[in-house]
Amino acid sequence: MSNYTLNFKIEGGDPVSVKCLSNETILDTAKRAGVVIDAPCGGNGTCGKCRIKILSGKSTGEKSKLITDADYSDGWRLACGSKPDSDLELFLPATAQAFQSRIRVTDFSGTREKAAFESLRVSLKELGFENDYGIEKVAVEMTEPTLEDAMADRERLENALIEKTGVSAVQFSLFALRRMPYSLRKDGFKAVCVLRREGETCTALDVLAGDDSAQDSPLYGLAIDIGTTTVSILLVNLKTGDPVTAASGGNAQIRYGADVINRIIESTKPGGLERLQKAIINECLTPLIRRVCINAGIEPEQIYRVTIAGNTTMTHFAIGVPGEFIRLEPYVPAFFKTDPLCACEIGLPVNTGAQVIFAPSIGSYVGGDITAGVFSSMIYNKDTLSLFIDLGTNGELVFGGKEFLMSCACSAGPAFEGGEISCGMRATNGAVEACEIDKETMEPKLRIIGNAGEKAAGLCGSGLIDIIGELFRCGIINAKGKFNVEGKRIVKDDYGGKSYIVAFAADSATGRDIMLTESDIDNFIRAKGAIFSAIRTMLATVDMPQEAIDDVYIAGGIGSGIDIGHAILIGMLPNLPVEKFHYLGNTSLSGAYGMLISDKAVEQVKNCANSMTYLELSSHPSYMDEFVAACFLPHTDASLFANN
Amino acid sequence: MSNYTLNFKIEGGDPVSVKCLSNETILDTAKRAGVVIDAPCGGNGTCGKCRIKILSGKSTGEKSKLITDADYSDGWRLACGSKPDSDLELFLPATAQAFQSRIRVTDFSGTREKAAFESLRVSLKELGFENDYGIEKVAVEMTEPTLEDAMADRERLENALIEKTGVSAVQFSLFALRRMPYSLRKDGFKAVCVLRREGETCTALDVLAGDDSAQDSPLYGLAIDIGTTTVSILLVNLKTGDPVTAASGGNAQIRYGADVINRIIESTKPGGLERLQKAIINECLTPLIRRVCINAGIEPEQIYRVTIAGNTTMTHFAIGVPGEFIRLEPYVPAFFKTDPLCACEIGLPVNTGAQVIFAPSIGSYVGGDITAGVFSSMIYNKDTLSLFIDLGTNGELVFGGKEFLMSCACSAGPAFEGGEISCGMRATNGAVEACEIDKETMEPKLRIIGNAGEKAAGLCGSGLIDIIGELFRCGIINAKGKFNVEGKRIVKDDYGGKSYIVAFAADSATGRDIMLTESDIDNFIRAKGAIFSAIRTMLATVDMPQEAIDDVYIAGGIGSGIDIGHAILIGMLPNLPVEKFHYLGNTSLSGAYGMLISDKAVEQVKNCANSMTYLELSSHPSYMDEFVAACFLPHTDASLFANN
Repeated sequence: MSNYTLNFKIEGGDPVSVKCLSNETILDTAKRAGVVIDAPCGGNGTCGKCRIKILSGKSTGEKSKLITDADYSDGWRLACGSKPDSDLELFLPATAQAFQSRIRVTDFSGTREKAAFESLRVSLKELGFENDYGIEKVAVEMTEPTLEDAMADRERLENALIEKTGVSAVQFSLFALRRMPYSLRKDGFKAVCVLRREGETCTALDVLAGDDSAQDSPLYGLAIDIGTTTVSILLVNLKTGDPVTAASGGNAQIRYGADVINRIIESTKPGGLERLQKAIINECLTPLIRRVCINAGIEPEQIYRVTIAGNTTMTHFAIGVPGEFIRLEPYVPAFFKTDPLCACEIGLPVNTGAQVIFAPSIGSYVGGDITAGVFSSMIYNKDTLSLFIDLGTNGELVFGGKEFLMSCACSAGPAFEGGEISCGMRATNGAVEACEIDKETMEPKLRIIGNAGEKAAGLCGSGLIDIIGELFRCGIINAKGKFNVEGKRIVKDDYGGKSYIVAFAADSATGRDIMLTESDIDNFIRAKGAIFSAIRTMLATVDMPQEAIDDVYIAGGIGSGIDIGHAILIGMLPNLPVEKFHYLGNTSLSGAYGMLISDKAVEQVKNCANSMTYLELSSHPSYMDEFVAACFLPHTDASLFANN
Repeated sequence: MSNYTLNFKIEGGDPVSVKCLSNETILDTAKRAGVVIDAPCGGNGTCGKCRIKILSGKSTGEKSKLITDADYSDGWRLACGSKPDSDLELFLPATAQAFQSRIRVTDFSGTREKAAFESLRVSLKELGFENDYGIEKVAVEMTEPTLEDAMADRERLENALIEKTGVSAVQFSLFALRRMPYSLRKDGFKAVCVLRREGETCTALDVLAGDDSAQDSPLYGLAIDIGTTTVSILLVNLKTGDPVTAASGGNAQIRYGADVINRIIESTKPGGLERLQKAIINECLTPLIRRVCINAGIEPEQIYRVTIAGNTTMTHFAIGVPGEFIRLEPYVPAFFKTDPLCACEIGLPVNTGAQVIFAPSIGSYVGGDITAGVFSSMIYNKDTLSLFIDLGTNGELVFGGKEFLMSCACSAGPAFEGGEISCGMRATNGAVEACEIDKETMEPKLRIIGNAGEKAAGLCGSGLIDIIGELFRCGIINAKGKFNVEGKRIVKDDYGGKSYIVAFAADSATGRDIMLTESDIDNFIRAKGAIFSAIRTMLATVDMPQEAIDDVYIAGGIGSGIDIGHAILIGMLPNLPVEKFHYLGNTSLSGAYGMLISDKAVEQVKNCANSMTYLELSSHPSYMDEFVAACFLPHTDASLFANN
């Protein structure tokens, strides 16, 4: 094979030119060159996300079912199924990078996010979790050096700190050491040090010039949630506990597969583990941290403490530890807990001396996102029985209270976050997050994330629940998720299936119809079926009816909320009174937030992990039957949802 | 100015093509592109090391005095004084990269270096410095995980280690965590851990599969001496204390200046500090470490402990801490001591969890090379009075014994290591290291470092002492270092001076005459004058005659040894009986070696530093007069050397 050159014209980005190697697909070449193309299916040709358009040149490869004839004639191809047969000029639409490139930054002035964190903070405070993060500012004055007193800066400052604080010795982070000589000379050897106490000694994380503003300036911390599909971070003013700025973006690992299994497989290829770590640290967290710092007007080096919650595999890959034994019997991760790491050890662009604290895992499929989430939901502290559900790419469930905590995990797939849905997207601007459908006209009324007048760009999790719920309520689809009726919004696609057009091309942000296909509905039904059957199996194990559940706490980044009625209607959640349900949002992030502001909270998350048992669903005899029965709208046993 | 392209054809290397920026010299462009060209003078046009040959194209710039007319016609230019006036094709001879590219690797099977370290080790052992480096191997066996016992690897291993060793907890370096899953599964969950004890807890630095070879395999450590001109490392088998392989190379920072002052100036330019750190870590230490590891057949990750001795400025730059206040009154470094750093913090390519321990400095011009050197010389432990002299780019002196230790520093320049000498080079293969001259014929008899039949490539420090001593003894040069006589080896150079041809072009490795110019002799006389006047001033301060010195210990990498008779003859060393002199070689490296094999030695080096006072020569009233008087052969007061 010759070595053809691919010229990528990237929507909203600089062009990239790269020679492809023998036998590489266009997707392979892009991966190698760092050109971001979403491939949630891992390049199997099944998700259809890696659409690129050939502007000039010839390619080889079978026509994908996921490309219409018209689009094919226009030059559209799947990058994973095409190889160059000449030099190529390629157009890479923003939609092909949607999971990663759409960073959403939220500052907290007067938003509902702020209110949510306010109420979390009040609850944490009531339980004694506040402001014990061990970092303080200490102001000192020194005599200036002279020819007669030429003591080095570090020794001079250490002596002053020992005298002021009574510690026996001071260690200095490399960052502090590097900044110190300039800071000391800025204000006549008056300085403000950022210290982390460690028993009798302490570590200086930063040395600031000792003017008033330095003394009063905030200390910052960063809470991080690494989800399989979405990565979210929260910049926090440690002194006040106030969230300052949040940001989220797609997990850049998605181009190596939508689920952890495909990524674990990628990690075993040469250089794979490094690629996955780089995708998290360099491609997700670095730009997100840059964005929140710019938004808040601070330097990344002012971030002195970091907490991370993520599922077991994500935690392994974030620090570059092999996760391949997670997917091989007997499914053992490399670690549950890890000691705090130095930010510089994993290349996180914050203060080099900042400690990075991880929420512990309890098993291969119940990770730090759940232990942190259970902590933040506070169900561990309740006399009543709660069901905690985290709707992520993996669905995790925890059932119990003060007396016991029982957990299990099921593979829901990325549908709740818009993955493996033809027009799916994360809950960012342009996503349809809620929907009502008129039973007569079949016309939808959409709520779209973003500014007034925002056009629909795709469908996020909460929108999918609404649309499918409404289509089912209106009798437009049947219990198997197939279309029953005809109408101007019901179109046949090229492969015998039907689709519902949520927004016509003229009204959409992408210039293409935003639609929901029968295959999408099928994917979603399997996701909701996984969750519902897990709930049923778990209750059966402890021999309890669903009425034993006092409260249901729903977590996950599926949108701004979830319509419980619709979720029950389609058989995703148990048929309980609506007031028993509480939507908590991203509890992995709020758990990491609690750990950020309090060392006691870090201990409590460990305690939650220690007291949690794990139920392996896949080895449970009835789980598969339950799952099959739950893959209907709402269920094969309709009596379970009789009141609706 | 247009942006011309420079094509460097590099002797012994791959060609490099780079566009130059407006108004850049060829040297500037090379620096920016990472093309190594020596420029010990910092690009001032005074050292003549940056000779390049223009193969095609035109350049502008004044003709340098350091280029002969014949060479100029052939296209030779100084890269620092030339700018392109068209695209250029350039030849970069190996000699222009000699300081950096000539790495010398020594394994210790039967060499005299081995004997030197043997005797050092015996002395260290007598004083109780041996094998207390706190790292051990512990073998453990675990039960293999099953579906019923799916405890994570780290927790499984930690429990086994706690049971075996009685520690309360085990931390894991990131490297150990990354290797662990594979190592555990290689031999049925039998493992050998490399542990560093830290009181009640310990850190696992490595996890090896538990076959017999892993248990018996050595633990490695690395001692490093970072000199201004030369960087030396020593790989040590920690278990036995045996040196395994040594390597040395030029300090790659030399292209930013031969002395610390020029480098400090470079460090204050944008990105300068990072360039200097990169030059040490990436360009010197990384290839040296790679070479010793290849030679010894080990992985760099098997290096679990590192000690570094260097002067104050080199230590600052090695860890990227600003050193600019070292050269500004009141001459205060950023630190004297620094806590052990993690290898990964400074990017040293050894085990990520290895501690890097630095020898402490006591002032801006008496650094860790001297505190480590004084330790290894053991003069601190003697009842008699010793004079310790380190002949480096800075000359440092320490005088005293058990009762007191007094230090001072003088700027000798790089002449002792072959710097700022027209045919100077480090003591590597091809260097003339010793010389006798026949008084009648003026013919020299040379000893050249390397294999039998090695041709002369240049002159190293010990060779310079011999040649100048012999020229003076034979009456070929006078007390001012000028040539007195004519002869076939005495040639006039283009600028009115004369030179002695040490090796004719036909017998030289470079194809050019290896010569010693009057300007070289002048440079060397100033270097030896700086040392001798420092000795005189120091003795005057404590009001002692030179006869009070019981022993003189000479350190420094000036060659394989030093001819004391010649050194006294030219007035470099005091006129004392020859048996009082002891050549110790590189004591900075041997001090770092002591610190490597013993934590007690680390403490003792700190004690040496604490008990050492510093005499500032530049502020001493008589130093300048002493220096001027010492800039003759042997001295203006010839009576000082009357017995010779």
